[in-house]
Amino acid sequence: MAAWGDRLAGVRGVLLDISGVLYDSGEGGGVPIAGSVEAVARLKRSRLKVRFCTNESQKSRGELVALLRRLGFDISQEEVTAPAPATCQVLKERGLRPHLLVHDGVRSEFDQIDQSNPNCVVLADAGESFSYQNMNKAFQTLMELENPVLISLGKGRYYKETSGLMLDVGAYMKALEYACGIEAEVVGKPSPKFFKSALQAMGVEAHQAIMIGDDIMGDVGGAQRCGMRALQVRTGKFRPSDEYHPEVKADGYVDNLAEAVDLLLQHADK
Amino acid sequence: MAAWGDRLAGVRGVLLDISGVLYDSGEGGGVPIAGSVEAVARLKRSRLKVRFCTNESQKSRGELVALLRRLGFDISQEEVTAPAPATCQVLKERGLRPHLLVHDGVRSEFDQIDQSNPNCVVLADAGESFSYQNMNKAFQTLMELENPVLISLGKGRYYKETSGLMLDVGAYMKALEYACGIEAEVVGKPSPKFFKSALQAMGVEAHQAIMIGDDIMGDVGGAQRCGMRALQVRTGKFRPSDEYHPEVKADGYVDNLAEAVDLLLQHADK
Repeated sequence: MAAWGDRLAGVRGVLLDISGVLYDSGEGGGVPIAGSVEAVARLKRSRLKVRFCTNESQKSRGELVALLRRLGFDISQEEVTAPAPATCQVLKERGLRPHLLVHDGVRSEFDQIDQSNPNCVVLADAGESFSYQNMNKAFQTLMELENPVLISLGKGRYYKETSGLMLDVGAYMKALEYACGIEAEVVGKPSPKFFKSALQAMGVEAHQAIMIGDDIMGDVGGAQRCGMRALQVRTGKFRPSDEYHPEVKADGYVDNLAEAVDLLLQHADK
Repeated sequence: MAAWGDRLAGVRGVLLDISGVLYDSGEGGGVPIAGSVEAVARLKRSRLKVRFCTNESQKSRGELVALLRRLGFDISQEEVTAPAPATCQVLKERGLRPHLLVHDGVRSEFDQIDQSNPNCVVLADAGESFSYQNMNKAFQTLMELENPVLISLGKGRYYKETSGLMLDVGAYMKALEYACGIEAEVVGKPSPKFFKSALQAMGVEAHQAIMIGDDIMGDVGGAQRCGMRALQVRTGKFRPSDEYHPEVKADGYVDNLAEAVDLLLQHADK
């Protein structure tokens, strides 16, 4: 445990992943992970700055925050960095008009965006809406463009619901990349731009920040490539093999968010 | 045109792709490509040996041949090399019990295969059956296996129906490969084993054989890697950019099968 003290010293800001760290989604909305409601509250009472950094793209930020508040979390919409608002920013900056392949729950985030005569495809975690027909429509839209642009809200392989592991948007991004012979642009973790916008909103430098997540590639690897430290929790989609990942090694592995917060409050100030 | 004579000299056997060369599939079964019915008949009256080599995996061989005969083609089941029967052979040899993610039209090909307690996933061009639920079930099956085996019947990016381009099995293979962190085994073109079994059935050596297809990678590139020559037809899924493909150059490009047969009958014997 001695190593922990060194590794957490000087942390001033904490980025928290949501799904698999705060709660597991599933039927009826989902269930909080044991100890996480209290852990978030303790973090927020501390001197550490806190921000939520999620790739959730099935729900609007408003819906996500409302769900988390119902589950008991102290969280507001302004504290959340999420890929749909970041994507709208990109679309506006570049004059892109998207064909959306997204879940109905997140569609409202794009209400202010011109979707006529599409010149790009935006892909999010569409869940059941990943039908053959919808995928084929996105594929055909891309193939008709002279310069096909595919924007993917995250590139996660899978996530965990209470009922089991579920395919995430990354799998469908790869399908369209292969079919069209193109490379997608990712808005969301592990994109450095996305992590940096979360750090900016928190007002903390990368070397003073730590990411806590359940995804060894998207959360841990992505944050480390930005100069942050990162802990992986053994909840959510964590699998024991993650601790022996060939490419990514977390600064620490903890049983859950509660343990991470215990350690942070003990060592961050040193 | 002088170059053609050289390139086609000494051809003794012809492998014909089916979809996009003989006919375009679509509503009501599909339509023959102009001149192809007659071109197949002329080839079969010549001294050249002929075999059909397809990645069709939505239909059983019986159904496919019945459809082609209705469209006027002289073809029998014994003349067709197709991935479903080849997959059954692999499954039997290795004691694999598949979870099938396939089109209902091809399911009968697997009637003799034990499908209880699956220890692999077999993926074919499932069309509308590529629902999120079915993809997720295949994903979960693979993730529960200690040594996940994914067999894909071909790895085509897309094919052409009369209504337009359609996503093919390769896109969904890539999705599962990425989600599970594995590599699929391909049964079908461009697998060398598959081409070789077609050559064997025809009784012709690779250097004496030519492949005629509409897929620059799967047909042309695959056949050339086996030591065959290959022509690409400008029908089916052909796109003008194929003639400037960065990796694969066909031995010749022809407007359709009829032109290919004209040239073969003129030059093959030289």
